Amino acid sequence: HAADIAGDLAMARVIVPRGTTCMVADPHEIANVSGLSGIEFFLSDSDDLPLDLFLMAPSCVPATGFETAGATISVRDIEHLLRHPRVIGLGEVMNFPGVVAGDPDLLAKIQASEGRPVDGHAPLLSGNQLNAYAAAGIHSDHECSLAAEALEKARLGIRIMIREGTAAHDLKSLAPIVDQRNARRMMLVSDDRHADEMMENGHIDYLLRRAVEEGIDPVEAVRMVTLNPAEHFGMANRGAVAPGYLADLVVIRDLDSFQIKMVFKSGKQVAADGRILEVPAGATVQRNLLHSVHMSPVKPEDMTIRSDGSAPLVRVMEIVPGSILTKSSIVEAPVDGSGLIQADPERDIVPLFVLERHKGSGRVGRGLVHGFGLMKGAIASSVAHDSHNIICIGADSQSAAAAVNALIASGGGLSVAVDGEAVRTLELPISGLLYNGPAEPLVAELKEIKEASRLTGCRLADPFMTLSFLALPVIPELKLTDRGLFDVDSFTPVELFVTE
Amino acid sequence: HAADIAGDLAMARVIVPRGTTCMVADPHEIANVSGLSGIEFFLSDSDDLPLDLFLMAPSCVPATGFETAGATISVRDIEHLLRHPRVIGLGEVMNFPGVVAGDPDLLAKIQASEGRPVDGHAPLLSGNQLNAYAAAGIHSDHECSLAAEALEKARLGIRIMIREGTAAHDLKSLAPIVDQRNARRMMLVSDDRHADEMMENGHIDYLLRRAVEEGIDPVEAVRMVTLNPAEHFGMANRGAVAPGYLADLVVIRDLDSFQIKMVFKSGKQVAADGRILEVPAGATVQRNLLHSVHMSPVKPEDMTIRSDGSAPLVRVMEIVPGSILTKSSIVEAPVDGSGLIQADPERDIVPLFVLERHKGSGRVGRGLVHGFGLMKGAIASSVAHDSHNIICIGADSQSAAAAVNALIASGGGLSVAVDGEAVRTLELPISGLLYNGPAEPLVAELKEIKEASRLTGCRLADPFMTLSFLALPVIPELKLTDRGLFDVDSFTPVELFVTE
Repeated sequence: HAADIAGDLAMARVIVPRGTTCMVADPHEIANVSGLSGIEFFLSDSDDLPLDLFLMAPSCVPATGFETAGATISVRDIEHLLRHPRVIGLGEVMNFPGVVAGDPDLLAKIQASEGRPVDGHAPLLSGNQLNAYAAAGIHSDHECSLAAEALEKARLGIRIMIREGTAAHDLKSLAPIVDQRNARRMMLVSDDRHADEMMENGHIDYLLRRAVEEGIDPVEAVRMVTLNPAEHFGMANRGAVAPGYLADLVVIRDLDSFQIKMVFKSGKQVAADGRILEVPAGATVQRNLLHSVHMSPVKPEDMTIRSDGSAPLVRVMEIVPGSILTKSSIVEAPVDGSGLIQADPERDIVPLFVLERHKGSGRVGRGLVHGFGLMKGAIASSVAHDSHNIICIGADSQSAAAAVNALIASGGGLSVAVDGEAVRTLELPISGLLYNGPAEPLVAELKEIKEASRLTGCRLADPFMTLSFLALPVIPELKLTDRGLFDVDSFTPVELFVTE
Repeated sequence: HAADIAGDLAMARVIVPRGTTCMVADPHEIANVSGLSGIEFFLSDSDDLPLDLFLMAPSCVPATGFETAGATISVRDIEHLLRHPRVIGLGEVMNFPGVVAGDPDLLAKIQASEGRPVDGHAPLLSGNQLNAYAAAGIHSDHECSLAAEALEKARLGIRIMIREGTAAHDLKSLAPIVDQRNARRMMLVSDDRHADEMMENGHIDYLLRRAVEEGIDPVEAVRMVTLNPAEHFGMANRGAVAPGYLADLVVIRDLDSFQIKMVFKSGKQVAADGRILEVPAGATVQRNLLHSVHMSPVKPEDMTIRSDGSAPLVRVMEIVPGSILTKSSIVEAPVDGSGLIQADPERDIVPLFVLERHKGSGRVGRGLVHGFGLMKGAIASSVAHDSHNIICIGADSQSAAAAVNALIASGGGLSVAVDGEAVRTLELPISGLLYNGPAEPLVAELKEIKEASRLTGCRLADPFMTLSFLALPVIPELKLTDRGLFDVDSFTPVELFVTE
């Protein structure tokens, strides 16, 4: 099971020609599935890359106590990780309600990282709670979606990472607040971006183009992806073209297109005109990473929601286009004659399931979601932040079961089923998250499976990316884990059925 | 010999009411005289101050190999010092020719400080040599006196500390280059400022007033003394008013006068309307610090310069007003009938002596200086950067000997002699550098001895400050150490007498 071009290496082949020579990543996705061995795979796989990969020790694995992950990262694990020369700080502290409530375990993790950068994640947090979060020692936030939110955070000393992802597009709302006075506290970052978008539109070069389009001064924009992150992450010899700094150089056509002509890493040319010049061998993927879906096949009857009869109202998660936030609403339950909740294409409401896949508990969380436009069939994924259980929407229970079972058979990935049959599966066998091969076929397969998703009637630009955030209980307002519905604002579980 | 208000404490009483709550200092002056025990005195003396004192490990003790200091700080000493929680980086690497030449000892000191701030000192260094200096890992410079010099350094990634001292006034020439784009890489710093100026005009508040007078935006000026130095020195919880930051707060009247109304240290008020509210006890001064002048009294014949007859020309050090730089010129030797070089008031040239005072070697360096306006008598000081030997200018050898002997008797300090008799001595018994008492009597005594210096005809604003830099062989162009004249540009000893 050797993967010669999986993971970091496949990504490097895409982004190095786009001018990225240094990356700081929080490996909490693979850590939620495979624990320390997932992180160690990232570190060993990236040893000889033509870019430098640094990791932040994941602070919130699992993200909350209201979900089942495949692994836990403890304070001791963090201390262990921070001894690695390429683990340079504490990754996004996304359990912000835990920090505000003074959770001793979280505070111990922040304390263990003293003197290093501590990244935050606190969407829409404000006022006293945000003050408490900042006071705990959080240095950055990449979850701002509103200008006022970013300004409030910046004024509290929190560095703002302006994020553009496949589902989250924050640059348009945040660009107007960037000026020459505050730009030093701002960065442009990528987050949850699909491989096809990176290949087609670029990586950090894309962020630069978009930033300038949105009116950010080009020189400030460049500093927001070079000097500013270098300062934030405490890298004294990166982020500028000067003696004593690494010769990580990118030759661009101009400050509008940011078209990348040549890329140099530590003084050596590594890419020319969009091609990488030399590709090192990747690491061998450990066996346990390739067997990460631990559950039995499901039956159609597992993929149903039974009304309790007494409650005529249900909570529905509402997708917010261009955002990973959701809204919560309460509507009349779409119950059929036999007492089962059914998809209601007219109101654009479909059942949503999160199936625990790490421990074989058989636990299934059930909810309803509005906004996918699903008319028939089902869509499923083992990429479901942050615990990466299997998430599935289905217009009928046969299709839902078929989509989930396709993922169990493939060891994880993305799937589409129609009329009770799986029609397409994209295999992501490394921890159920990563493709085991280079980017080009992955992108082709991604395109094909997105095409296949159209058979369900769904018209979202990227239904898999949208789906993958619906199980993340640290993004407001309403989310679904394997343990059921979760109200992020009150940070408590809630029932699907509402009795008036 | 306990000093209850010496050193750090006396300074804190002056500068805390002026709004200074954190200080980063390079203790190389006391280290040149008293070595590690001098540095340890600073650390213990500052334990309970109402301000935080951090030190940089002195990199260049002695500053060069061409002078005799009282102690040496080795690579091992630096490693030892850096283990102290309040020693946070490497102090000004002033032996810049040594760095450029690849001196292994200096490079080892920089290496020992990896990952920490390394401060520089490279007046007028430029071009390839400056590139080499920056490439060695130097992060700042506080010796820029010219706008073009500061811009060249800033462009090479070196942070600029704009310095105002008693003798060096760099703000006027450097203020015009500060703009909103580069201000983040700039700081305002104090250096070699006499106590009377601090008491009368202020400390950092004075720098802020001057910066705004010179046209720097007041908000940028404030960041140049708060956030910017905090970032340079890697202090994540200082430099801003925000949650998680120390509550070191200064209440000012307005952004022009910067008049200080209240000062809070870590949330507690420590000064009001120019008065400090609470004064802790200082440390006991160790006995060896109080006996630092190790030499026998001198005779008038020691304080003469004998011509070698053959050379009609001599090198003269020329004072540059408002600067610590000197120029070098060659003039006809002022020889008398007996073959002795004499003071020549008409050409404003007087003999200059540097007498080794640490080892009892009896070594005397001899030179000539232009620009003091000395008509009679002598001025001497044991404050003579960086080795702090005894430096003396004298219009006649009796007065010169009297001024030097007054310092030997007092254990160091400043002295003035006229007509062969010492007329005034200011005692600085701690390592021959520091007053043993509070600032108020020191300032009164400083005023008196400056008054006394007028008896010699000298009209320099502060002859002792000017004198104190004439022995520093890392400030261009011509300097005098106990080992003789030194040409800083070529970094080699030169002869007083020039044979055509």
